[in-house]
Amino acid sequence: MSDGSAPALAPAIILVRPQLSENIGTTARAMLNCGLTDLRLVAPREDWLSDRAVAAASGADRVLLAARRFDTTAEAVADLTRVWATTARDRYMVKPVDTPRQAANVIRGLEAEGQRCGVLFGPERTGLENDDVALADTVLTVPLNPDYTSLNLAQAVLLIAYEWYQAEAPDSLPAMTKGARDTGPAPKEKLIAFFEHLERELDACGFLRVPDKRPVMIRNIRNIFQRAHLTGQEIQTLHGIVHELVTFRLRKGA
Amino acid sequence: MSDGSAPALAPAIILVRPQLSENIGTTARAMLNCGLTDLRLVAPREDWLSDRAVAAASGADRVLLAARRFDTTAEAVADLTRVWATTARDRYMVKPVDTPRQAANVIRGLEAEGQRCGVLFGPERTGLENDDVALADTVLTVPLNPDYTSLNLAQAVLLIAYEWYQAEAPDSLPAMTKGARDTGPAPKEKLIAFFEHLERELDACGFLRVPDKRPVMIRNIRNIFQRAHLTGQEIQTLHGIVHELVTFRLRKGA
Repeated sequence: MSDGSAPALAPAIILVRPQLSENIGTTARAMLNCGLTDLRLVAPREDWLSDRAVAAASGADRVLLAARRFDTTAEAVADLTRVWATTARDRYMVKPVDTPRQAANVIRGLEAEGQRCGVLFGPERTGLENDDVALADTVLTVPLNPDYTSLNLAQAVLLIAYEWYQAEAPDSLPAMTKGARDTGPAPKEKLIAFFEHLERELDACGFLRVPDKRPVMIRNIRNIFQRAHLTGQEIQTLHGIVHELVTFRLRKGA
Repeated sequence: MSDGSAPALAPAIILVRPQLSENIGTTARAMLNCGLTDLRLVAPREDWLSDRAVAAASGADRVLLAARRFDTTAEAVADLTRVWATTARDRYMVKPVDTPRQAANVIRGLEAEGQRCGVLFGPERTGLENDDVALADTVLTVPLNPDYTSLNLAQAVLLIAYEWYQAEAPDSLPAMTKGARDTGPAPKEKLIAFFEHLERELDACGFLRVPDKRPVMIRNIRNIFQRAHLTGQEIQTLHGIVHELVTFRLRKGA
């Protein structure tokens, strides 16, 4: 996306008659979070390069600087092959309805075929007019708490951009933090050596003194540490803890 | 959720030392959009019922009014059994990492078993401190454009709340073997009490004697036991182990 080669396709975000320049700025931020940069503005009421907009963009000004202005929604979607219209209300139009996740998967599939897609968002207070919705192929509705569906403009953009971004690389994070990857999980022999150390000391101090209970207690204690998926460094720490707890009092008593 | 019957479980959102009351308001709005209402504030800098906060909540003031304030992160998570810590940076701690979608599915599964979960969010500029992260079981990182990961606090809350709302409660998700389910995972306050017991003894015996290393050693030790998802019974066993290891030699010496 930033390697200087021809950019991969990504959906255009089209704000129709946005009221507040600050919301254009926060939209730019939400877009860039998810790798989107094609921002289109239909008859915005305020200047999208205002100080308020740039401050709200919080470092994503490159999206604002590249934004394009259009007089009409029709012009703004002219080069696109598939368009979604975000609405919260039912428009009594016969149109398919997608969730953001469904739309994201369709967009990815179309982009793989070289098609350009876009998503329309209406003015903050009123939402899209029916004539704008009629320019879209599909309605896009975010499933939200039916008691409270009032979604800020940039938050609606974020959810849709986020789903698009996840659709590319779903759940591809490493399963552990880097700290764990660096040292790696310990081989079981190290874990078992720690178990033997701990159990030796628990025998010595009388913790395992009831013969009938000893096997189940040992299994329970081993299970605690098995579940932690310990690294070698952590096992060293645990050896140290047991050793120090035991010997300090001995030194003190001696 | 609003039918007057006992509310279904939903995760707590815990803002640790939030700086701006406006962000608390927008967080409340993002929560209510996705049916979340349990907002907890650890030492917030500003009044979360300020005019700015209420205006930013945009009709979600019921979440602000019900928010609870805590002095410490430990107190805020005391009644929870599973906690995630949102971080963008790698903390070089040994902890599992979830995406929002993975975390949402795990939370739904645990809630189906009656467990209470929560997600920690750090201050706007700095994020969570490592000592806060050490109180969590799992790190939560939102996969975003690596060139621009700066996510507004309320937007981070929204993405996680949204994934929770989209996720289905599973019919039955065996998060643990039956042995663990029988006694159930311990609430965090019991785990923290064990940490304090262990650290008191480690201070006494000199294991933590190097002041520069003490904080990171404590975090590493806490992370070991966080990962084990201990039951109340297991925590009792660990208390017993520490106590016996320490006192036996003393008795012998005496």
